[in-house]
Amino acid sequence: MKRSGLLLVFIFACNLIFSQDQDSLLIKRIFEEALSSRVAYENLRYLCKNTKGRISGTPQAETAVLYTRQVMLGMGLDSVYLQELKVKRWVRGDREFASVNSTRTGYHELTISGLGTSVGTGKNGITGRIVEVFSFNDLEKLGIEKVKGKIVFFNRPMDPALYNTYLAYSQAADQRVDGASEAAKYGAIGVIVRSLTTSLDDFPHTGVQYYIEGIPKIPAVCVSTIDAELLSKLLKEDPELELNMVSNCENLEEVTSYNVVGELKGSVYPEQIITVGGHLDAWDTGEGAHDDGAGCIQSIEVLRLFQVLGIQPKRTIRAVMFMDEEIDQRGGKKYAEMAALNKENHYLAIESDGGGFLPLGFGFSTNYERLKPLLNLQKYFEPYGMNHFSRGGGGVDIELLQQFGVVLVSPIVDMQRYFDYHHSPNDTFEQVNIRELQLGSAAMAALVYLIDKYE
Amino acid sequence: MKRSGLLLVFIFACNLIFSQDQDSLLIKRIFEEALSSRVAYENLRYLCKNTKGRISGTPQAETAVLYTRQVMLGMGLDSVYLQELKVKRWVRGDREFASVNSTRTGYHELTISGLGTSVGTGKNGITGRIVEVFSFNDLEKLGIEKVKGKIVFFNRPMDPALYNTYLAYSQAADQRVDGASEAAKYGAIGVIVRSLTTSLDDFPHTGVQYYIEGIPKIPAVCVSTIDAELLSKLLKEDPELELNMVSNCENLEEVTSYNVVGELKGSVYPEQIITVGGHLDAWDTGEGAHDDGAGCIQSIEVLRLFQVLGIQPKRTIRAVMFMDEEIDQRGGKKYAEMAALNKENHYLAIESDGGGFLPLGFGFSTNYERLKPLLNLQKYFEPYGMNHFSRGGGGVDIELLQQFGVVLVSPIVDMQRYFDYHHSPNDTFEQVNIRELQLGSAAMAALVYLIDKYE
Repeated sequence: MKRSGLLLVFIFACNLIFSQDQDSLLIKRIFEEALSSRVAYENLRYLCKNTKGRISGTPQAETAVLYTRQVMLGMGLDSVYLQELKVKRWVRGDREFASVNSTRTGYHELTISGLGTSVGTGKNGITGRIVEVFSFNDLEKLGIEKVKGKIVFFNRPMDPALYNTYLAYSQAADQRVDGASEAAKYGAIGVIVRSLTTSLDDFPHTGVQYYIEGIPKIPAVCVSTIDAELLSKLLKEDPELELNMVSNCENLEEVTSYNVVGELKGSVYPEQIITVGGHLDAWDTGEGAHDDGAGCIQSIEVLRLFQVLGIQPKRTIRAVMFMDEEIDQRGGKKYAEMAALNKENHYLAIESDGGGFLPLGFGFSTNYERLKPLLNLQKYFEPYGMNHFSRGGGGVDIELLQQFGVVLVSPIVDMQRYFDYHHSPNDTFEQVNIRELQLGSAAMAALVYLIDKYE
Repeated sequence: MKRSGLLLVFIFACNLIFSQDQDSLLIKRIFEEALSSRVAYENLRYLCKNTKGRISGTPQAETAVLYTRQVMLGMGLDSVYLQELKVKRWVRGDREFASVNSTRTGYHELTISGLGTSVGTGKNGITGRIVEVFSFNDLEKLGIEKVKGKIVFFNRPMDPALYNTYLAYSQAADQRVDGASEAAKYGAIGVIVRSLTTSLDDFPHTGVQYYIEGIPKIPAVCVSTIDAELLSKLLKEDPELELNMVSNCENLEEVTSYNVVGELKGSVYPEQIITVGGHLDAWDTGEGAHDDGAGCIQSIEVLRLFQVLGIQPKRTIRAVMFMDEEIDQRGGKKYAEMAALNKENHYLAIESDGGGFLPLGFGFSTNYERLKPLLNLQKYFEPYGMNHFSRGGGGVDIELLQQFGVVLVSPIVDMQRYFDYHHSPNDTFEQVNIRELQLGSAAMAALVYLIDKYE
């Protein structure tokens, strides 16, 4: 594209005339400052590169707690503190390996990764025939006779035809979350689950799984989508094919961890709290850049933007790094528990957990009367490409605050690329675009500013 | 992010209820087919990996002509043909090199790249003191006295504070496009221009420059933004610093090249033509994935979507790969010339040249009466996240069609990442996300379908 070709495109932008009132001008300054500063981007780089593997309970998670606390202490906020909590401690072992071998197919290794909270396979692993299924319904049809003693291979892909990748994820996630117990009901000795991603890649995309009480706990791993396709093909060549898989992960004793909180005190209603948060823990195989280093660093950036632009909030604004979103959501539970214990007055909570992608709008969960003026704020964001203001918002770490009548808010960001990175070794700092990260911070800061001023 | 956290986000999507009329259903099928098919993505891979460096006049451009022609022939279109034209032939040499050296600063090499149409420096290059400027105004203030015999270093960055990256580009592009002649007016012996990108990176981002008639032609190169920052710093340490730069590019004789055209014949008004195009040439240092392999492949994909879904267009739909957008726009000129010569009846033209990024809407250039119903089509696109339908659209290769009263259309796509790749070795296939590419094709096909049916 050359220069003159761009001229016509500008007209689009020029149509979005700023209403030059004070609020629009302040929001413009928020966006300009965020887009001109590399502070948040460099903070994210540090977090990703120095706390890689920070699933809750690990030393890396501890380092992430200390680092984000230190960053906020260095900003001279009104208050920075930790909220102590207990977390589960699941540890991936030093060996994860899977292979198939038969005279018909030859020898193939598969790229796998244990699922969070899974039991290990023991030193020598498990070996068994493979049953490929696409749903729990398939399992039921096969019954104990055909499943017992075998390894169940869940291979239903995320539906690529859906525009909404979250929906595609939700429609496939049962295999990962409940697959082990569902297969164990029929006597399976292990499960191998197709990675939850829209892309065809070589990464295992891990995530949590939960055992159902009273059903034998069997080992659960995920396999890359490329190797899931391969395994399916090999099974057609040789239905008798056996899989050997080794994963020496373990569930250890619970350990102490923390939420990290930083506050800018409100100048008029300091007792009213606006929470802006992300979760600090991240799957251990990656750097947790999009999920959810971005959300944490953006939350801190909201406070920095208020500081650097000299905006005095009427209410207290809190940046919260929640611990343990990925496994047992203990951070969110602790935060709500402390809110009740301290009789805190919570006003609004935003959780950024959709990755550091292009912001398109906000979703709000609240009653009808409060919703309407919130939706009307859209006009302030249209000059920045954001016009998806709609009903429905929240996040697992803030949803318990709803008991206090809090407005729950989600940034709505571009969701097309999220599952390329989600829960995989591919979720690295390099995959975050600086401008998308910056725009996300600016959008949250601008929303907090408007709501604090007008609600 | 875990499963339950996503539920609230769905509500956003669920608000966008499809109006279940036939057109909405057909558009849903277009999106589903595009999102489920890897054909366009694999075509783009082939183009990028086998015709890298396809600036007009090169053998690679020739290969790209043959390849896209072959792809369209293989689709069984109603007609596939070439439009012959002459193009300039500018060749980058085998040596591009720049360094500074002084006792105060030490020795540093800089990452540079010659600008398109620039003359070379000669074998031994040129050496001279450096004058850093930020505008043509700066040059004027310095005058002949301070510029003569020196190398002018244009170092005004694209303004990161602007949301609109096209606007930031346009505000900085004069340095690249006209910098050499402006500096030569004051006796400069060469120019080195800060790369036009929003990112701090190690890539030179090249592009065309034009000499003004009657002013001496001096060599022009661009330098990576990281090295532009370095050079600026070194100049503060040693204002006497000398730069040596070598670039043995050349302007050769014009050669023959082609636009590539494929058609689906209209069933009712075959004489009325809807053009959907991109440009086939690309800067020689990269693979031309976003600029503009994506636009070419998406245009072909529009025809494939019509075919595979059995949509019979009333009007003739043409996919056009324009040649020579980057240097002299000869392809666009030839296309308009042939349209006049053959008394063609052109109805509407879309050019996709903003990269294979998330589609957000369309911009239209036409008169008020025709504009309104076009803007009303937005409702069909909202379920796919597209609600930027606005006035203003076009592209350098189609703008000459305006003389025939044609509606000019631009896809509006996410513009935040474009300049990370633009005109650089970083514009590779790997930087294109399959889903973004697919959504762009689907959006164009859906728009063509609706306009063909209703206008």
